[in-house]
Amino acid sequence: MVLTIRPADVTDHEAIWRIFHEVVAAADTYAYPAETTRDEALSLWFPCGGWTFVAEMDGAVAGTYVMKVNQPGQGSHVANCGYMVDRAASGQGVGEALCRHSLAEASRLGFRAMQFNFVVSTNTRAVELWRRCGFAIVGTLPEAFRHPSLGLVDAYVMYRRLDGTD
Amino acid sequence: MVLTIRPADVTDHEAIWRIFHEVVAAADTYAYPAETTRDEALSLWFPCGGWTFVAEMDGAVAGTYVMKVNQPGQGSHVANCGYMVDRAASGQGVGEALCRHSLAEASRLGFRAMQFNFVVSTNTRAVELWRRCGFAIVGTLPEAFRHPSLGLVDAYVMYRRLDGTD
Repeated sequence: MVLTIRPADVTDHEAIWRIFHEVVAAADTYAYPAETTRDEALSLWFPCGGWTFVAEMDGAVAGTYVMKVNQPGQGSHVANCGYMVDRAASGQGVGEALCRHSLAEASRLGFRAMQFNFVVSTNTRAVELWRRCGFAIVGTLPEAFRHPSLGLVDAYVMYRRLDGTD
Repeated sequence: MVLTIRPADVTDHEAIWRIFHEVVAAADTYAYPAETTRDEALSLWFPCGGWTFVAEMDGAVAGTYVMKVNQPGQGSHVANCGYMVDRAASGQGVGEALCRHSLAEASRLGFRAMQFNFVVSTNTRAVELWRRCGFAIVGTLPEAFRHPSLGLVDAYVMYRRLDGTD
């Protein structure tokens, strides 16, 4: 398996929409509405001033991430990312490769930290993955996510410095 | 002193912009860039699908708040608010009146909780005010705010249920 991570462009729109829709329709990890349209999804995934990458595995897009400033102005030294992996490529390290790539990119761009605002607590694979990548849970939002089968569950705020101090 | 809180409309734009600009130019409480323009400010303060109110004190706009959904989709039962008070009206309970009004409005609209994503830790008056209004610090974002005189300082995530369970 050869995994290549590169900036996304317009030729990736169809693959990104396919992955986004699959993830969001499951409604168990992201707060994007299940009925998000293709245009809305691509606007979210290619925000003004943001950075979008794809992971190609054996020539096909297997995952993607978007990075942007988490807060403007006096908070603009903290990055935010969202990651999605094609279900067919699950369990092959694509998410971790995307996360490690995004941390390197964020450092290169001068960000001092990265923050995830809304990690669904029952998405334990993601929580463990972010921990492995150096993130800590810095906040717990009680019952902030309406899980389709589990009801109201907590969401976490996760945070990682990029300056090597922790 | 008579304090009236009512929905904002286009006739309030000038007063809201004056207050917004004053607060944001100080750069010590909000992450909006100090150079935010009037049009950008009004777009932020009158978001699609949001609710904007003003407090009138003796007939003049003394403060304002904006309420919106904090996360879409499976997180849309949690509201988010931002509040700003005219410096000339500071210390007269306008902020607390706005907050209590917003909590009542959020309940009436069916929200289950309210979340503040980025309360600057050195803004102790605000932190104490939100505590008085029932909010708890549920997260601490290390050095997430670049204070103009204090350097990098923490920001808090604050949260309050609206269903009377705490």
